Amino acid sequence: MDAHTREIIRVDRLATGGKGESMEAGKINKNVVDHCTASEYVPELLPQGVRKDLKPLNVLQPEGPSFKVQDNLLEWQNWRFRVSFNPREGAVLHDVRYGDRSVMYRLSFSEMTVPYSDARYPLVRKQAFDFGDGGAGTCANNLALGCDCLGVIKYFDAIVTDPEGKPEPAPNVICLHEQDEGIAWKHTNWRTGRAVVTRNRVLVVQFIITLANYEYIFAYKLDTMGGITVETRATGIVSVVSIDAGKTSDYGTVVSSGALAQNHQHIFAIHLDPAIDGHNNTVVIEDSLPVPMNKDTNPRGNYYEVKKTPVTTSSWHDADITKNRVVKIINPSKTNRISQRPIGYKFTPMPTQLLLADPESLQAQRALFAQHHIWVTKHKDGELYAAGRYTLQSTREHGGVADMVARKDDVENGDPVIWSIFGLTHNPRVEDWPVMPVEIHELKIRPCDFFEENPGIDLPSKRNETSVLVNNGGGQECCGTNGTNGVNGHTNGTNGHINHLG
Amino acid sequence: MDAHTREIIRVDRLATGGKGESMEAGKINKNVVDHCTASEYVPELLPQGVRKDLKPLNVLQPEGPSFKVQDNLLEWQNWRFRVSFNPREGAVLHDVRYGDRSVMYRLSFSEMTVPYSDARYPLVRKQAFDFGDGGAGTCANNLALGCDCLGVIKYFDAIVTDPEGKPEPAPNVICLHEQDEGIAWKHTNWRTGRAVVTRNRVLVVQFIITLANYEYIFAYKLDTMGGITVETRATGIVSVVSIDAGKTSDYGTVVSSGALAQNHQHIFAIHLDPAIDGHNNTVVIEDSLPVPMNKDTNPRGNYYEVKKTPVTTSSWHDADITKNRVVKIINPSKTNRISQRPIGYKFTPMPTQLLLADPESLQAQRALFAQHHIWVTKHKDGELYAAGRYTLQSTREHGGVADMVARKDDVENGDPVIWSIFGLTHNPRVEDWPVMPVEIHELKIRPCDFFEENPGIDLPSKRNETSVLVNNGGGQECCGTNGTNGVNGHTNGTNGHINHLG
Repeated sequence: MDAHTREIIRVDRLATGGKGESMEAGKINKNVVDHCTASEYVPELLPQGVRKDLKPLNVLQPEGPSFKVQDNLLEWQNWRFRVSFNPREGAVLHDVRYGDRSVMYRLSFSEMTVPYSDARYPLVRKQAFDFGDGGAGTCANNLALGCDCLGVIKYFDAIVTDPEGKPEPAPNVICLHEQDEGIAWKHTNWRTGRAVVTRNRVLVVQFIITLANYEYIFAYKLDTMGGITVETRATGIVSVVSIDAGKTSDYGTVVSSGALAQNHQHIFAIHLDPAIDGHNNTVVIEDSLPVPMNKDTNPRGNYYEVKKTPVTTSSWHDADITKNRVVKIINPSKTNRISQRPIGYKFTPMPTQLLLADPESLQAQRALFAQHHIWVTKHKDGELYAAGRYTLQSTREHGGVADMVARKDDVENGDPVIWSIFGLTHNPRVEDWPVMPVEIHELKIRPCDFFEENPGIDLPSKRNETSVLVNNGGGQECCGTNGTNGVNGHTNGTNGHINHLG
Repeated sequence: MDAHTREIIRVDRLATGGKGESMEAGKINKNVVDHCTASEYVPELLPQGVRKDLKPLNVLQPEGPSFKVQDNLLEWQNWRFRVSFNPREGAVLHDVRYGDRSVMYRLSFSEMTVPYSDARYPLVRKQAFDFGDGGAGTCANNLALGCDCLGVIKYFDAIVTDPEGKPEPAPNVICLHEQDEGIAWKHTNWRTGRAVVTRNRVLVVQFIITLANYEYIFAYKLDTMGGITVETRATGIVSVVSIDAGKTSDYGTVVSSGALAQNHQHIFAIHLDPAIDGHNNTVVIEDSLPVPMNKDTNPRGNYYEVKKTPVTTSSWHDADITKNRVVKIINPSKTNRISQRPIGYKFTPMPTQLLLADPESLQAQRALFAQHHIWVTKHKDGELYAAGRYTLQSTREHGGVADMVARKDDVENGDPVIWSIFGLTHNPRVEDWPVMPVEIHELKIRPCDFFEENPGIDLPSKRNETSVLVNNGGGQECCGTNGTNGVNGHTNGTNGHINHLG
């Protein structure tokens, strides 16, 4: 269709053939849906109904939440930051501080592209840019109490723009709540049997978007040990095309009679604009490298080298599991009193596959950002979009990270911005139908010599009073004096690392 | 010391020097501890005390747990399996079934080695085998209610052997509980605004070991969508040696005055003995590979190939993120009715660094298993230990996976066993002191065409009744009719994947 004249120019009919057939096979097959079967996910429509044996699990916070909210200012467990919401990126964190020290100037989900692998025309054009095309904020869900998170929830509303550009209220597009994340740290002194256990608590800032068939759940999780985790969950309904009865295809998986779920990738871009005790930061690539046995530095061959390389010029870098590659953001002018190293934060570039499309293909040219794991650029106001501002119907990535890097800016001890690229190569399985179980990715940003000890060392270790023993036998009272939560102490004197010292 | 005569043969004194000094620097430095400072983690000894602003978060299960336990037989959400406990491996899962279909014959934590990187004698010998030397079961904690997990807990007791070989009761060494793991799947029909959200529940079988300074938390997590996640958490106190005042070292990080935490690795081995609808299984390596643009099969360059290679002979394989390498365990004789592919389960080999020590080093020879991510061997009764049965003071891995693989057994459509190797290269940070925040690894084993739809499609989607709104403003009632948990619908017609079809 000509978008201006609204005139239909051509109708492309889809092929419905299978393995070994020509790419045209099955075009204009008017009966292709005849062998399709219903696939329901709405509870009252499920033939087998809903399972009855999952008993309620409730999260109660009798004294209320541990967080404080004033407008868009959030305070929780030494963290202090502002949250905003916009039609393009959804929820964004600003001026993230721990105590009175700054950690992040801005943290956001920048872009995601979903290229499909079907080689048949016009399906070769199937590639979504969910942020640039759809608008994460515009497609955000209005969240509902007790549906999307448990416990004590705070919702934030936003204003989005409607198709005429008029402002429109969007209630409950962000939810805020606390979550227990299991043991934070534990140690049992085997000499005394005294155990100290603490639990990790996280503050979750979450929003969920629906882009037609797919759902994405995005969350920032701040924890009680100085860490920030950026989480993506992909769910919803996989995109399918018709396939003739009884056929299979190299382009994907038949997930239901007549429904071919095509192979595809989801490639995410996270935008990190750090401020580690200020903006004079340097990005360092830290590799752990083997050292051949040699009598001077490695006589027994057990030594390995930790090599640190500062990023001086805007550039891209890739994950490397063989080197245990870590990206550190340091403040070269601030030294940790204990380690005598620069203070910083770090993360491991997500070790996932990058874009598979041929570098010369339209898919690849539109998503240059998706071809490396890490892009380091110099902060420039308004540069927020990994694939550029305008992605809809684009023929090449314009003003995205590739163009930013091409400026060859000096980023050492300057004001660097880091783009973390990761994703999911999704060759569907039957279990992804009719609605797909969440596929979770977590980017874990952690302090590294930023503090002078474990910032969670003061977490309360008192036992949870509401936990109970199951009443069907076993599990006798276990909180006596002798060896409470202790170790089968007799053996530890002859076990473990200490005894491996000599 | 001569272990037989108990006679002291030699005293090796430790060097305490730093960067740029000889490996002998600082030996017999009697005053090295004078500049050490106290590092407390026990609540009542903390100078700053325990934080007061973390409010209680309770997990309540008013109708009790959803699981049934009879002796060591566990039943929960279509899962059915037995759990055992032994001094070497700790908790082991047996005969894991979903409904009446078998998935795993045996699943266990097999071994872990912790080689240290300090090149100075005698520290070059520092390498623990926590299962083979220490005994995971022998060093298991006696768990305490409300300390190690929340909600309704079932404990299991075990019998271990004392140093004289006599049986000794070990109470509460395994805990069993349910956990909420957030959204399982969600879809909002943008045409109607109707949202269906379900929550993922997991059954956690957990045990915790203390090996002198270190703690490890091991868990098997079975979920409501047919998945099994094997989780390791490393915590406890990092192993340190003395260092002279004011010095730093290439061998590690000064985490406290006078305390040098040496660089090291933790390399885990998980033992998977699958039984996908029986024992006639085949292991398949599945890679997603780029295909150069070409007019016959890839005219626009967006197509990629999914290449499946069955493992015919016992062998090792490595993770490869550039290929999105996935390990599938299929039953070649059973075909999924929908996809017309063999039924199976899959996992992504953990993309982490392998052993760094020189291949000729003692460290490497003792831990041949730690040099590849995946080992496929043929089932043989009693072959349970990745590094062999006897690791203590070993000079080479004997009877471990390397020897098993050397047999070149035929493993296609036979009874394969898979060993998943992963780990953590741990160059300590100051935040790891005095007790280290958990470092978490998760091996996610998922059904792949094993079922005919998402096995969690029948999860209840009714809202949690006990979740409440925070009372400080905002978050107005959000459960009305219009667009309840819906999408800002107006834009979706012009967004998202559907519209990327043409």
